[in-house]
Amino acid sequence: MPADANNMQRFTRDQIEAFMTRCFAASGMPDADAATVANLMAEGDMLGKDSHGIFRLPGYIGRLKSGGFNPTPDIKIEKERTAMALVDGDNGMGHLVVHRAAEVAIEKAKTAGVAWVGLHSSNHAGAAGVYSNMALDHDMIGLYVAVGSANHLPPWGGTEALLSTNPIAVSVPADKEDSIVLDMATTVTSYGKVKVYAQRGIEMPEGWMVGPDGGPLTDASKADTGYLLPIGGPKGYGLALIFGILAGTLNGAHFGKNVVDMNADAASPTNTGQFYLAVNISAFMDVGDFKKQVDAVIAEMHGSPTLPGVERVRLPGEGTHAAYADRTANGIPLPDPLLENLARVADDLSVDRLG
Amino acid sequence: MPADANNMQRFTRDQIEAFMTRCFAASGMPDADAATVANLMAEGDMLGKDSHGIFRLPGYIGRLKSGGFNPTPDIKIEKERTAMALVDGDNGMGHLVVHRAAEVAIEKAKTAGVAWVGLHSSNHAGAAGVYSNMALDHDMIGLYVAVGSANHLPPWGGTEALLSTNPIAVSVPADKEDSIVLDMATTVTSYGKVKVYAQRGIEMPEGWMVGPDGGPLTDASKADTGYLLPIGGPKGYGLALIFGILAGTLNGAHFGKNVVDMNADAASPTNTGQFYLAVNISAFMDVGDFKKQVDAVIAEMHGSPTLPGVERVRLPGEGTHAAYADRTANGIPLPDPLLENLARVADDLSVDRLG
Repeated sequence: MPADANNMQRFTRDQIEAFMTRCFAASGMPDADAATVANLMAEGDMLGKDSHGIFRLPGYIGRLKSGGFNPTPDIKIEKERTAMALVDGDNGMGHLVVHRAAEVAIEKAKTAGVAWVGLHSSNHAGAAGVYSNMALDHDMIGLYVAVGSANHLPPWGGTEALLSTNPIAVSVPADKEDSIVLDMATTVTSYGKVKVYAQRGIEMPEGWMVGPDGGPLTDASKADTGYLLPIGGPKGYGLALIFGILAGTLNGAHFGKNVVDMNADAASPTNTGQFYLAVNISAFMDVGDFKKQVDAVIAEMHGSPTLPGVERVRLPGEGTHAAYADRTANGIPLPDPLLENLARVADDLSVDRLG
Repeated sequence: MPADANNMQRFTRDQIEAFMTRCFAASGMPDADAATVANLMAEGDMLGKDSHGIFRLPGYIGRLKSGGFNPTPDIKIEKERTAMALVDGDNGMGHLVVHRAAEVAIEKAKTAGVAWVGLHSSNHAGAAGVYSNMALDHDMIGLYVAVGSANHLPPWGGTEALLSTNPIAVSVPADKEDSIVLDMATTVTSYGKVKVYAQRGIEMPEGWMVGPDGGPLTDASKADTGYLLPIGGPKGYGLALIFGILAGTLNGAHFGKNVVDMNADAASPTNTGQFYLAVNISAFMDVGDFKKQVDAVIAEMHGSPTLPGVERVRLPGEGTHAAYADRTANGIPLPDPLLENLARVADDLSVDRLG
């Protein structure tokens, strides 16, 4: 595929998936698990979540090498009732564990109407929207919440980073319109985005971070002296806290001080917590009617007049739908530095390089 | 009770509850329902939610008089499965309908582990935390979401108020510490607070509202020319939208353009939608262990060093616990203008005045 203007080369989803599959298989994972994780990661890339797809491969392979992930986990239901389950991820890759949780929740919601599956001993699972989207094929609404894998957020007014960006993703099916997919952190920006600004030497806008004095911090190179800001101040802090309790504490997973920074420590189990909630639309109303009404809601939002300088109102998820269409047609763009990293990973594992 | 410095008189909860009970009974509600609504409203006052308790009585009585509420609703389960129900509120007062929904959800969660009850044909139900708190006595986590009763929020970048402040409340039990109670709108501030600023002629801080040009609006007297801002910009818009779909659309309740402004129209049924989610902690882990771990989370947050000028880190709900203690000891403070309104309501209904 042709190189993009900004030093990007594009690869098909199949190429990327096959490459990641051979990397995971060469790292000791069973073939089927390797293929599942590769598929879910490539789906993240298709959705345009560039920091949560193949970009993570070198880090994940490093953790497998250091014993930070269990390559052959025995993922099992530890407790269950009609409408819930608690799943032990046995320190397997988060993608496998969350995928399993979503399957169990969707299956239970078919009869119970609604089902909630909590996880412990899981790990970072990549792009949250990949999992909330799993409910759509079953005419369900999917909701996924995770304890983030590194603490960069202090409680409101505090200076100790006790919380993560604890994200939520919700997918709602529509009829003729694209599904609505909200996939957001409870902080104004992600720490990953701050790192990109630091790398490129760009100043951050006010409101993303505060410095040690509580004043605005805009110099991204000084990010480690400051703190991320939650959305809506105390409200985002409250959401990050509640999501952490629901996805972490309730499942016996880490939350707060005992969260392991995945990037700083490649060997310790993270005991990551997540939960998945599936809502079966047909239990509430005719699915076709519901989808038509979601179309109507979307049309209302699109029909709103706009503020000066705003071309049109968008729905959550429009960016991911556009990325999916572009990448289906043109492939997934990968920057040269990442390609060099991936080549090193391939050589280390003695597998064929990407392409 | 003694008058406060700022023209407040304090009344006991019993006095306030008895007064509201006689007002509702005199407005055609059955005695038991009148007492239930009065109890739930007084609970809002005890929690310090001054704009969501007895403050609302004159408006509610007005709606009952105008036929906007059904005084004798037949609240019934329309659809149900093991872990869900859809309840038809029959245009009864929202307090009755949401209280019933919470009871049904809690009952179902006892066996199913988790249960979700959606509502349509409900109405404004007062302070959200009153309902999420109902789960605490059952060692459950309660989560409540409502479609707000007037649209003051445009979609992000838009200028048509298609959304409300669609709030969420979540209550989590602790052991020795006070429970965590997050009770928040998805907007930076509420329209009620803006009205108070306008009344008092105080300038609003930047970030609460924008004017018709998209720039900051700080003159509260011009609020009707501008728009509320969602928390975290597009993120808060996304949350308000998703909460509206889950609490409104999914239940066949109004959401978007068809939301009825309760304050502008006292006669039309609002078809308000809400949902209640009960999570049974014992399905996941030992309840005592969970509560101890929540205590530990609270201690961690309290232990955080603070930014300059911040005395200490607080947990969501601390303000309501303090208000509850104060009002239990000293009574509920009511301002003179409200007392005059309440006296008029009493005289109109030929019932004894408050006191």
